[in-house]
Amino acid sequence: MSYQLLEKTFYRLSQIDHAISMLGWDQQVMMPPGGNGSRGRALAELQVMSTEIMQSQQLQEAMADAESQSGNLEDWQQANLREMVSDIRAANAVPADLVEALAITTNDCEHAWRSLRQENNWQDFEPLLQKVFRLKREKAQALKSALGDEKGYENDYDALLDLYDPGTRMQRIDPVFAQLKAELPVLLQQVTQRQDSEPPPVQQGTAIAQDRQIELARELMAILGIDFNRCRLDVAAHPFSGGVSDDSRITSRYDEADVLGGLMAIIHESGHSRYETGLNRDWRFMPVGTSMGMGVHESQSLFFEMQLGRSKPFIEAIAPLVRKHAGEDPAFDAENMHRLCTHVEPGLIRVNADEVTYPLHVILRYELERDLILGRAEVKDIPARWDATMQDYLDLDTTGNYRDGPMQDIHWPSGSIGYFPSYTLGAMTAAQLHHAMVQAIPDAPAMISRLELQPVFDWLSESIWQKGRLLNYDELMTEATGEKLNPDHFLNHLRSRYL
Amino acid sequence: MSYQLLEKTFYRLSQIDHAISMLGWDQQVMMPPGGNGSRGRALAELQVMSTEIMQSQQLQEAMADAESQSGNLEDWQQANLREMVSDIRAANAVPADLVEALAITTNDCEHAWRSLRQENNWQDFEPLLQKVFRLKREKAQALKSALGDEKGYENDYDALLDLYDPGTRMQRIDPVFAQLKAELPVLLQQVTQRQDSEPPPVQQGTAIAQDRQIELARELMAILGIDFNRCRLDVAAHPFSGGVSDDSRITSRYDEADVLGGLMAIIHESGHSRYETGLNRDWRFMPVGTSMGMGVHESQSLFFEMQLGRSKPFIEAIAPLVRKHAGEDPAFDAENMHRLCTHVEPGLIRVNADEVTYPLHVILRYELERDLILGRAEVKDIPARWDATMQDYLDLDTTGNYRDGPMQDIHWPSGSIGYFPSYTLGAMTAAQLHHAMVQAIPDAPAMISRLELQPVFDWLSESIWQKGRLLNYDELMTEATGEKLNPDHFLNHLRSRYL
Repeated sequence: MSYQLLEKTFYRLSQIDHAISMLGWDQQVMMPPGGNGSRGRALAELQVMSTEIMQSQQLQEAMADAESQSGNLEDWQQANLREMVSDIRAANAVPADLVEALAITTNDCEHAWRSLRQENNWQDFEPLLQKVFRLKREKAQALKSALGDEKGYENDYDALLDLYDPGTRMQRIDPVFAQLKAELPVLLQQVTQRQDSEPPPVQQGTAIAQDRQIELARELMAILGIDFNRCRLDVAAHPFSGGVSDDSRITSRYDEADVLGGLMAIIHESGHSRYETGLNRDWRFMPVGTSMGMGVHESQSLFFEMQLGRSKPFIEAIAPLVRKHAGEDPAFDAENMHRLCTHVEPGLIRVNADEVTYPLHVILRYELERDLILGRAEVKDIPARWDATMQDYLDLDTTGNYRDGPMQDIHWPSGSIGYFPSYTLGAMTAAQLHHAMVQAIPDAPAMISRLELQPVFDWLSESIWQKGRLLNYDELMTEATGEKLNPDHFLNHLRSRYL
Repeated sequence: MSYQLLEKTFYRLSQIDHAISMLGWDQQVMMPPGGNGSRGRALAELQVMSTEIMQSQQLQEAMADAESQSGNLEDWQQANLREMVSDIRAANAVPADLVEALAITTNDCEHAWRSLRQENNWQDFEPLLQKVFRLKREKAQALKSALGDEKGYENDYDALLDLYDPGTRMQRIDPVFAQLKAELPVLLQQVTQRQDSEPPPVQQGTAIAQDRQIELARELMAILGIDFNRCRLDVAAHPFSGGVSDDSRITSRYDEADVLGGLMAIIHESGHSRYETGLNRDWRFMPVGTSMGMGVHESQSLFFEMQLGRSKPFIEAIAPLVRKHAGEDPAFDAENMHRLCTHVEPGLIRVNADEVTYPLHVILRYELERDLILGRAEVKDIPARWDATMQDYLDLDTTGNYRDGPMQDIHWPSGSIGYFPSYTLGAMTAAQLHHAMVQAIPDAPAMISRLELQPVFDWLSESIWQKGRLLNYDELMTEATGEKLNPDHFLNHLRSRYL
């Protein structure tokens, strides 16, 4: 019965997560500003309740019993037990007072960051961020010392990576990122040379009202298989996807001068949403029925955005739709749209970066946060290292421009350290999945050009969505693509698209 | 320290309530239909968690200790302890399996009601409602037997009344309702005679788009002191007010052919909202800092709608605003608007009823549900009694029209039995408060006609909002108005407005 007790407990935790997720969405999208204090308290208390459940003596005992009797469980339950045990151990590895200190510190730092970033004020930001990194180091040490042997952490940073992308270790990242670091700058030079030899694409000439962009977005989402019976689309200052599996909440923002940018964001968020809403319903509310880490999540959004959304056949197919809603601007000619969507140009801001330069933004952050956690660098060193690396990787000067430099992302002030690599792991995973999908469905490109996407979704559903956390990342990739993560697919994709 | 433990526990309960309230608002206003199953589970689990906390051994012990050491507490803490004890006792008086059975049964009945009402299908509704009333009888009996002596319940129905309107007993209601039953039909006849002798008011001639009505509503809400930094206004099929004290969520609906009806609904909900957002911030998250029962809540919405909103000086003052947003339709002449807002006409539907006939709708329901709980009537008797009473009180035939008869309200199918009297207690309370306010601020009518409403709000804040649950209802009314509830104020108000 101990396993059943675990299931019952995780069912409860899943309902608390439902509340946290929806209240978080509401906070970003609906809540009037004056509600923020109360909302923060409610979210914090729900979090504390979750932690108390995870740290209860009763749950530890049930876990021990369940592990000793696991022979009678079905396969999915075995996997579910493995995931529950992993979650419980992680929740118990960090002392409660450190959890609380981190919650308060990151809340303060993130809050301050919002205005300090506007002011380009690194000086006041530094001590706050220092506190965050100090506590994150403590957390990483606590996780490493409690779980390191069992999980195979070779260092403290591995323990943080594992929180966002289970199974990812520095050992997996380092050679892959080394390959990207070696090849991307060369590729970048070749691409920009090729681009410079052509006349520039036509930029959008007329402003398109938000309402019309939303209509276009909704029609496109339907093509992408979004079921509005289980999904909302709203506007948010910082777009994100949230909600729960039956009730997905997509947010986006719109720029009247950039319809295409908004469309690509919608396609991206639709990928996240299809993953969440496509999870295995037989395992609902159980850890094994939730999504894999952030890398796999990002692989789904990038499969949608980069592999499908910015591909020539897809853009050609949706061009009439764009013109129907956004008018006959010459920028919306299919060929020109594809050129706009695949324009490569080094820039200061990660979230605006193209597919070729994006990984370099990620690698910069990875190297910095890794060194900060491992004690090889301090927070005060960030600006100088940022400037030097931006110069080195992208030939851009960021001196004194903290706002568009190390203060541009919410991740560090909010305590998400170990998260950045997921973006590039996701991009590589997406390219590899797309390659395998085309092998499996040779007709796929032709079907995509007719917007007959169901076979693509079916393949993703079977390979990824329905699997939840049944397999580990290496197994998942091997079953889906026949091999573990292989960065060649990503680099091949970039070469074939951009050269 | 036991009192502190109670405070800590009720703080947690208050945060769970925050989640329940906001998720409930979202369910009505934002959620895509497919999310309903998951939302139901999440809300149920939060409710179960609340109940478990209320029924925990630890809390019972802390309560006993705190009561024995209550001498050291401040006045507000004494009142807070009293309210906490009352809440804990009520939560422990009903067996957990009955709580669960009621949750499931009312959920099923309310769900079925939505379609059965459309179909006018009493036959299939009756057995479901029978189950609700049977379980509600059990609940009433459990409450009466556990708390009856201490609370002075003279019968099982008293125990249900007390849940919605603490302190209200049949003994208080019966003479008051008897007086209304005797006087209102006479008054109704006089009013309709007077009305019939005059030309009818001009009805709105042009349709006014929802967007323009919302703009008007928002401007009016600002006049009513609504702070949009702590409030949202949205559209809902069944208008309600929800949220928390710092983050009030008002909903309304709009009929293009009836601007005034929509305006009055907005004024009504604004009254609820001002009460919630005006509660004492020093007692936030504590029972003593929450609103009194539904009767007092309704008194605030009816003070806004009936005492202020439909008064001639107020309507004259807002007429230019109405015409600014809704155009120069002759219906929006101030004199005509006042006549439209005070038109009396017996009708089938409670929520559409005017001030004069509304109490008769309530009394009908009160008499019926009281007899059902006390075993003097059965669910199968409802239609015949409904028909007879509507004939008797309002001279209307409802035979076979269940949809606009006993199936019109959500209250019974959702298990809200004992709630209806609050509406009329609220109307009487509002009239008495308004009378006292004018005594206290002789300038009030002149100020209202200039829309200088701050002194009115200040008086309500001091008399009601800031008091929370510090006093019981009789004390609250005596402090605010110099006497306990006296229905003469309501009858005088009706006579002076309608004759």
